[in-house]
Amino acid sequence: MVDSPSNKIPVTVLGATGMVGQQFVRLLASHPWFEITAVTGAGHSTGRPYAETTRWLEPEPIPDRIAAMPLRRPEPALGGRITFSALETDGAAAIEVEFARAGIVVISLSGAHRLEASVPLIIPEVNAEHLVLVERQRRERKWPGAIIANPTCGTTGLILAVAPLHRAFGIERMIVTSLQALSGSGYPGLSSLDVLGNVIPLIPGEEERIETETRRLLGQLQGTVVTEAPLAVGVHAHRVPVLDGHLQSVSIGFRRKSTPADAIAVLEGARLTPDISSLPSSPSRPVVVDSRLDRPQPRLDAGRERGMAAIVGRVRACPVLDLRLVVASHNRIRGAAGGAILTAELMNAKGFFNGTP
Amino acid sequence: MVDSPSNKIPVTVLGATGMVGQQFVRLLASHPWFEITAVTGAGHSTGRPYAETTRWLEPEPIPDRIAAMPLRRPEPALGGRITFSALETDGAAAIEVEFARAGIVVISLSGAHRLEASVPLIIPEVNAEHLVLVERQRRERKWPGAIIANPTCGTTGLILAVAPLHRAFGIERMIVTSLQALSGSGYPGLSSLDVLGNVIPLIPGEEERIETETRRLLGQLQGTVVTEAPLAVGVHAHRVPVLDGHLQSVSIGFRRKSTPADAIAVLEGARLTPDISSLPSSPSRPVVVDSRLDRPQPRLDAGRERGMAAIVGRVRACPVLDLRLVVASHNRIRGAAGGAILTAELMNAKGFFNGTP
Amino acid sequence: MVDSPSNKIPVTVLGATGMVGQQFVRLLASHPWFEITAVTGAGHSTGRPYAETTRWLEPEPIPDRIAAMPLRRPEPALGGRITFSALETDGAAAIEVEFARAGIVVISLSGAHRLEASVPLIIPEVNAEHLVLVERQRRERKWPGAIIANPTCGTTGLILAVAPLHRAFGIERMIVTSLQALSGSGYPGLSSLDVLGNVIPLIPGEEERIETETRRLLGQLQGTVVTEAPLAVGVHAHRVPVLDGHLQSVSIGFRRKSTPADAIAVLEGARLTPDISSLPSSPSRPVVVDSRLDRPQPRLDAGRERGMAAIVGRVRACPVLDLRLVVASHNRIRGAAGGAILTAELMNAKGFFNGTP
Amino acid sequence: MVDSPSNKIPVTVLGATGMVGQQFVRLLASHPWFEITAVTGAGHSTGRPYAETTRWLEPEPIPDRIAAMPLRRPEPALGGRITFSALETDGAAAIEVEFARAGIVVISLSGAHRLEASVPLIIPEVNAEHLVLVERQRRERKWPGAIIANPTCGTTGLILAVAPLHRAFGIERMIVTSLQALSGSGYPGLSSLDVLGNVIPLIPGEEERIETETRRLLGQLQGTVVTEAPLAVGVHAHRVPVLDGHLQSVSIGFRRKSTPADAIAVLEGARLTPDISSLPSSPSRPVVVDSRLDRPQPRLDAGRERGMAAIVGRVRACPVLDLRLVVASHNRIRGAAGGAILTAELMNAKGFFNGTP
Repeated sequence: MVDSPSNKIPVTVLGATGMVGQQFVRLLASHPWFEITAVTGAGHSTGRPYAETTRWLEPEPIPDRIAAMPLRRPEPALGGRITFSALETDGAAAIEVEFARAGIVVISLSGAHRLEASVPLIIPEVNAEHLVLVERQRRERKWPGAIIANPTCGTTGLILAVAPLHRAFGIERMIVTSLQALSGSGYPGLSSLDVLGNVIPLIPGEEERIETETRRLLGQLQGTVVTEAPLAVGVHAHRVPVLDGHLQSVSIGFRRKSTPADAIAVLEGARLTPDISSLPSSPSRPVVVDSRLDRPQPRLDAGRERGMAAIVGRVRACPVLDLRLVVASHNRIRGAAGGAILTAELMNAKGFFNGTP
Repeated sequence: MVDSPSNKIPVTVLGATGMVGQQFVRLLASHPWFEITAVTGAGHSTGRPYAETTRWLEPEPIPDRIAAMPLRRPEPALGGRITFSALETDGAAAIEVEFARAGIVVISLSGAHRLEASVPLIIPEVNAEHLVLVERQRRERKWPGAIIANPTCGTTGLILAVAPLHRAFGIERMIVTSLQALSGSGYPGLSSLDVLGNVIPLIPGEEERIETETRRLLGQLQGTVVTEAPLAVGVHAHRVPVLDGHLQSVSIGFRRKSTPADAIAVLEGARLTPDISSLPSSPSRPVVVDSRLDRPQPRLDAGRERGMAAIVGRVRACPVLDLRLVVASHNRIRGAAGGAILTAELMNAKGFFNGTP
Repeated sequence: MVDSPSNKIPVTVLGATGMVGQQFVRLLASHPWFEITAVTGAGHSTGRPYAETTRWLEPEPIPDRIAAMPLRRPEPALGGRITFSALETDGAAAIEVEFARAGIVVISLSGAHRLEASVPLIIPEVNAEHLVLVERQRRERKWPGAIIANPTCGTTGLILAVAPLHRAFGIERMIVTSLQALSGSGYPGLSSLDVLGNVIPLIPGEEERIETETRRLLGQLQGTVVTEAPLAVGVHAHRVPVLDGHLQSVSIGFRRKSTPADAIAVLEGARLTPDISSLPSSPSRPVVVDSRLDRPQPRLDAGRERGMAAIVGRVRACPVLDLRLVVASHNRIRGAAGGAILTAELMNAKGFFNGTP
Repeated sequence: MVDSPSNKIPVTVLGATGMVGQQFVRLLASHPWFEITAVTGAGHSTGRPYAETTRWLEPEPIPDRIAAMPLRRPEPALGGRITFSALETDGAAAIEVEFARAGIVVISLSGAHRLEASVPLIIPEVNAEHLVLVERQRRERKWPGAIIANPTCGTTGLILAVAPLHRAFGIERMIVTSLQALSGSGYPGLSSLDVLGNVIPLIPGEEERIETETRRLLGQLQGTVVTEAPLAVGVHAHRVPVLDGHLQSVSIGFRRKSTPADAIAVLEGARLTPDISSLPSSPSRPVVVDSRLDRPQPRLDAGRERGMAAIVGRVRACPVLDLRLVVASHNRIRGAAGGAILTAELMNAKGFFNGTP
């Protein structure tokens, strides 16, 4: 195992050269608890320094220590206590299993194991208690590590925003149009010729992902079983010419009647529990309500609260269901790397990495 | 009255220098039935040639005859049998009344009289029979002319697409996210600094307009009274960085159950009645169903059928209501000038302009 | 040889599925002299209908006759008297030679043979006389067909604009910043993540291409030898987020002194010779001077004259060299398919396709 | 005079609600030496809090202390030792004079006094010695304050980049194409309908501004007279759909021959003098040379070094003059508010604000 050059917890990043991988590198560069000890990339670039093989798309430069780090192949011998996986879903399944078998906690953005019954799908502010599935996973799979899944970027911001409403009024039905940023499809992603001055009405698989993950995230935990929440969700997912930041227009029908004023009060009153708010990457609040008429906007608002909160606006009655609102969130931070890091921080705070796995 | 230099019906265009006014000029330049005999503009440019006072934004040049035409003030002395009004709603109310009093048929894109009980709000393929309100209007207002209203650009394409479904299955509830093009707000409209790489979640008044007009357009005519259709519509209207072409994602609940296959059959089977299909500006069909997975797209599809049809795609089941689909339409053609001209053509075919008004 | 279904000259299009190939299909669909008898595409799609294998990016639909045409492999057995090659430079060299050996006239947009001494590089309005190189080519290469090259899209509009000035005043030095549209790099071309709200300062190889081709196109023909024009050209080539239409800012130093007024007079006086102006794809004039202060603009002006002219504006003195001006031209029409078709038309008018090759 | 709530030097910002004004507010919010004591805005919003009257376009929120500050009218009674003027050129002339008469040092981004013989036009790294003109100004104008001008945003980054080359080799001739960001024209600036997917070839007055200011900035100081540098500059200024960051392609002819390698060595060797490098807003170096082939790019590179440096790339020979290169710089930071603040810092370091004016 590679030694960490400090007392921090050694972590590795799989798929570190892509757009989300770069966010992991950026966000972990000066993390108070975690330290990157290895990064992996596609086979042909193995052995070359990270800086040479990465089309770095952030304004600030690559952190020096990572820039010089040679790209490695994704294998458990890399070491680390935690592995953040930004692998494509296709290749991720076997690799993530291998790491878990080797005793490493894999926090994965891939869809490879996301919906398995014993894999916790986590948004710390929403369903931290689902982490108990790790016990069942270790028991069933007989491995010392674990696989923890992050929702897809189209789900996280949405659920962060509506979870307080669900707790207060019970969401029964929800129709969402999700206007997703270009960075959500990775690099190179969409051709400029397709999307400049245009909207693409299809994001393959995304509608089903958001619908399924919503029911899982808001689902009930009994012992080590999560029962999907009994709610109907219908999503329209479109790609818009925005660099970063998803915008979602949402109509919701509740079990218990509520007015828009009630909903605003609940959203503005939403607070973090101390075990979350004390985490290094935590936003100051999960939901920011912006009362300006023409907000939130993805370019201006998705990055607020360091990109970790859901920004909600235009809360008003819906003539068909009960409530309409608009949510903006940062797909590469809250919806990807930042969300995964927050989950790792929560697990650390809960003692997951204290002893031997 | 200005003589028409031909046997065509003389028409005038109010607000001819704006983005929609330019579409009237372009579409009427070689119209087989109508001929522009006067154009009006803002007060300070009166008397100067159209070409000098207009920031022409079409690729093809200004038609020669119109280029040299002096801008006039909007007053009935301009003559013409028909007046197309592309005036802003604010100033339009009094002017349009004056024209109707003078015996001119005003086909208006403004919202000034759009929802008055005796003003027909017309989409020829959808509710041509509402034109009978003109009788009531003339009787009540005691004027020889008439005011006929066009729906707002966010309504027309949507209703053109869903009207066949309403006739077949009865729309009960509909939730729409309307992604509207920049040209919909006129020139100069939105600042490039606001909308480049961004989505603006608000279009003032547009949600209410689409909701109200939908109920009116699909309403029942009894005698000379239109009763609003008893359906619930909830709209989210956003501005996206697209030049021309609105894209709308729609979820619909029907009174009579239907499958997506039923809906596709209805949409593909939608045909124009001969009295519409014989009009010069008519599309070949009101709805084009595009089965490609990632269509329709506003930039590629809104201009099909000369911009006069609704292009529908992604017809599939909705987990909350019954059906989901996506509609693209051309906001400045079908949603504005082209739609108004089609209405004028229909009125002409029905003999409205045969005798003295 | 595939029979042409008419009396038109049978032509084939190599690389017909790409962005430029699509322009060939569109422009040739109703051509009065030429008729497409075969189209080729990448190996794996051979045999399937054109419509199924092409990501068609034009607003109007694929012409019916071509839509159903099966994609073929690029081999001389396809027949045709003329082959338009939209192949990538890499694969084009051998294939184009094979066609020429089989007696076919290849008009190529690829760079494969562009700078060979016996290959005419042609802009009909500029150097039609260079076509005489075909004699030398046939003699030297001992083939009955021919290869004729089109300049790269960054060169054609520029030289169309400045050639009248060169004839009048003798260009000695020229500095050009070429702002090139996304479609110039083919599909998918640049990632939307790179170019949205950005300018990319590099277009690999383009600066050298424009510099070399300029000297060749303006070169002197003696017998069957073209001597490069003795002028210095320096180009900065950048990619901008524009769909179609290159914009070039040009500073020129002349051998014979001239004022901006002289230059404007020359550009406005530029006329086509009758042998060009009678060709079906000819613009009405090679250069359109637009005196509006903020024109030409690529989106509004590149398509004027059916995309076949150079639009020039902002003609003014240069404090360093003699003259400054701005040129817009359509890179996929004049700079690619349209330019190649015009060359074929010229060759036909000169009798190249009258007898056996 | 309003008391500063700290020991910092009290400063005011004129025109604080615009896009550049917002940069002043952002950059001065936590400045170690200066503290905003008043902000001014257009007449009709006087008295209302800054946050209510400003269309704030920065991602981070308005600094609390400023958000609550009431907008004032621009009059010397506002106090402050330094006034940063982001006024439009039209209204600025008289107001800035009034402030100087009242003993205040006005550092102005307006063009009102920019080219007057006794007004120093300053880029600290380039011509700090021109500040001596203040003596002459005070003597001639008989006022205790001073007016110091900032170059226009199209000039600063360019001259920051080429000044080391001028010192080393003597610039004789320079041709520049300046691709300028939308924010350079203030809010609302260009209509989205004009500039989306387009390039506008005209920026009124900008070419002349850059040409004149270049000769002034590189001019020779003798006593208190600046003689314009004897060099020829020709500029093409275009607006491109980029939010922030100007990109300029530059061809230069030198008095003393130099190779691209010489030029790169000079640019990479350019260092700040200690009196500049110790200023709070100073970049770590004036010029950053980026050797990546496709850099600099305005969106990715203009913000490097906190937006205060010129980023240079593509340094290569020019076939017409001697050298070609590309420069990116941040128009609202280095080219506006950041540059003005750096000048104020330099003046403070030189003791301008030590005693009574």
